[in-house]
Amino acid sequence: MELFFILLVVLIATRSLGEAAERLGQPALVGELVAGILLGTLAARYTDLFPQISGLNQSPVFQAITDLGMFFIMLFAGIELQPNRLMEHSRGAIVVAGCGMVLPMLLGIALGWVFLPAGEDFFAQALFLGVALAITAVPATVRILVDLGKLESRSGQIIVSAAVFDDVFSLILLGWLTALIGDEPAEAFAFGMLVFKVVAFFIITTVIGVFVFPLGGRIMHLFKQKEFEFSALLAAALAFSVLAELMGLHFIVGAFMAGLFFGRKTIDDFAYADVRNKTSAMTFGFLAPIFFASVGLHLDFNAIFVIPTFVLMLLLTAFLGKLIGAGMAARYIGLSRPEAAAVGVGMSARGAVELVIASIALEAGLFATGPDTPAVIEHMFSAVVIMAVVTTLITPILLKRIYSGMSP
Amino acid sequence: MELFFILLVVLIATRSLGEAAERLGQPALVGELVAGILLGTLAARYTDLFPQISGLNQSPVFQAITDLGMFFIMLFAGIELQPNRLMEHSRGAIVVAGCGMVLPMLLGIALGWVFLPAGEDFFAQALFLGVALAITAVPATVRILVDLGKLESRSGQIIVSAAVFDDVFSLILLGWLTALIGDEPAEAFAFGMLVFKVVAFFIITTVIGVFVFPLGGRIMHLFKQKEFEFSALLAAALAFSVLAELMGLHFIVGAFMAGLFFGRKTIDDFAYADVRNKTSAMTFGFLAPIFFASVGLHLDFNAIFVIPTFVLMLLLTAFLGKLIGAGMAARYIGLSRPEAAAVGVGMSARGAVELVIASIALEAGLFATGPDTPAVIEHMFSAVVIMAVVTTLITPILLKRIYSGMSP
Repeated sequence: MELFFILLVVLIATRSLGEAAERLGQPALVGELVAGILLGTLAARYTDLFPQISGLNQSPVFQAITDLGMFFIMLFAGIELQPNRLMEHSRGAIVVAGCGMVLPMLLGIALGWVFLPAGEDFFAQALFLGVALAITAVPATVRILVDLGKLESRSGQIIVSAAVFDDVFSLILLGWLTALIGDEPAEAFAFGMLVFKVVAFFIITTVIGVFVFPLGGRIMHLFKQKEFEFSALLAAALAFSVLAELMGLHFIVGAFMAGLFFGRKTIDDFAYADVRNKTSAMTFGFLAPIFFASVGLHLDFNAIFVIPTFVLMLLLTAFLGKLIGAGMAARYIGLSRPEAAAVGVGMSARGAVELVIASIALEAGLFATGPDTPAVIEHMFSAVVIMAVVTTLITPILLKRIYSGMSP
Repeated sequence: MELFFILLVVLIATRSLGEAAERLGQPALVGELVAGILLGTLAARYTDLFPQISGLNQSPVFQAITDLGMFFIMLFAGIELQPNRLMEHSRGAIVVAGCGMVLPMLLGIALGWVFLPAGEDFFAQALFLGVALAITAVPATVRILVDLGKLESRSGQIIVSAAVFDDVFSLILLGWLTALIGDEPAEAFAFGMLVFKVVAFFIITTVIGVFVFPLGGRIMHLFKQKEFEFSALLAAALAFSVLAELMGLHFIVGAFMAGLFFGRKTIDDFAYADVRNKTSAMTFGFLAPIFFASVGLHLDFNAIFVIPTFVLMLLLTAFLGKLIGAGMAARYIGLSRPEAAAVGVGMSARGAVELVIASIALEAGLFATGPDTPAVIEHMFSAVVIMAVVTTLITPILLKRIYSGMSP
């Protein structure tokens, strides 16, 4: 029962520190991340006392639980948001997503230009830094906005739509990047296939969401089994997740799309509220705190001591790139100054999506180390994880301040 | 995303066959077990086509998901039942549990006497057969009674309380048995310690349940976080589960006790109904179908072909032992003939608890095989699994008939 012990410790730690965070006027997410960081630090220092916690992130079982956490967060985000309202903001969101990606990406490549040593992987490594800075973690932004009660505000909707665009583009770029590392012959063709598959994914899910979901909702009352609506939604979300992975996207995009097309009119108002309520319990009462603790657990302070300048510059560009890129774009599409600031800050959280992307690059061999590896390459993964955790930790604190200053 | 694919396949298979079972007038559980058996058989036959399904029961991730399933089923059972109503029936339940254990155990030992070859493990092996026949799977009986809408009937309450007693006694016996195999020096002392720990477990959980739970409920409104009640219940159930394992019991007993002491008065009527509703969704809409499919997946028909007489006798004693032992006891404590029949039949389901017990015995080396191992020892595990699955499959079908014949 090691699993139950771990879940117990993580649940108590996250909910206690989450409560402490709220008492200090901060979103609960901040407390959950800190709980993860503390548990990770304690376990690294006193390995013998906490054998279950150290190495937790290597455990396939814990990984599965945190994957389910990400899945439920994205599903809940989709349920909360309405496709037609998102579409209303979609033109603005595309502008915000575009500018909010291009500037950080250019800054990232420039950072690579300055800090990375010349070598055969130089271009791919610099591009990786660009992609790492370009992303916005949808699960983290959703959670932050839910904590602040701003998910359905105009700026909230723009942040989430733009973040979804960002993640989809980043995943395409990453696919291209890994093909580049692999030295595959038909690069242009592979890239074309990738784009084609992503487009196909969105067409398939939208057609199913618009036509099949309402049909399913209408025949739902014919089924006699307990909790059939909840199962049907989960099955749809699992199917979309599997499809997303098949099409080269991350599964979170699939879970989000399934939630998005499950709306008030899919079944009826009562069933919608009931399923939403049940998904919320599983998400915020169980899996989301464990998931955010796992993000904190990944933190490894090594890079801070070895390549402090690089880490500092990475953090600066991470915040400034999104603040200026996405913030100016938000101002351009007509948002007020504080709203635009909220968008610029809100897009900064890199959360766990960054960890996913960094892990893919690591596994693809982009940061392969040897006896002569320069420090900046050796500690790149640690630096990127620090950036992911710090942006996710600071974003809700700043965002809370901005929203508090705004007239409601 | 192999996990999501597997969850998707198992969820669709169980819910479809569950629906088919209900249309045929059977509880959904029957369909879920059949779904597991079918998936297992298909995967064993076409290993290449279903690489994800074959070997699923060896996957630690899938094991964790099914453990969570058992956990939620027991938690829900506890929430549904009320301690004071269980106490009302507890004297009757002890009689039923006692007779419902002693007769099958004697029959099991007799079966061993006839079929097992002489050897140094003879006594332990015969005793194992007794324990294997003595148990009743609480998660299976709870699910069956929920499916039939009879959990809160008098016979339902007696079945569940008696099953809990059965499982606790069986686990104590099993602890003694494994000590016996291990040839530990201080057997009597070890047995005494085991009993002491189990008693301590029930005293600790009861004191916490009676005094700390209502206190927690009263201060619950002071917490500001989302879904805090649900988290608090989960944390309590996880803590009780970990304690149960520490005390030599199975974790399901802990989850059950936590649910049991979470009652209408712990928080308030509304919060109770809300948490109950959320636990039900996670249980019956997601984890329970997957759990029962995994029970079906364990089925391996080998023993039927190699030791058919033994398998047949095992099945007969499994049903008759409980029907006569528990049924007669139920009649003795004043239940009507059909009610007593319901109790006798209802206690027959061995479900996954049997698999747990058989696995412990297997790991302890009770069925260690060599070149000269007799067939009955070699295929004992398979035979016990067949007995577990068949009793769990037949019990709901018979029980449904008995309850249908009773005036409501």
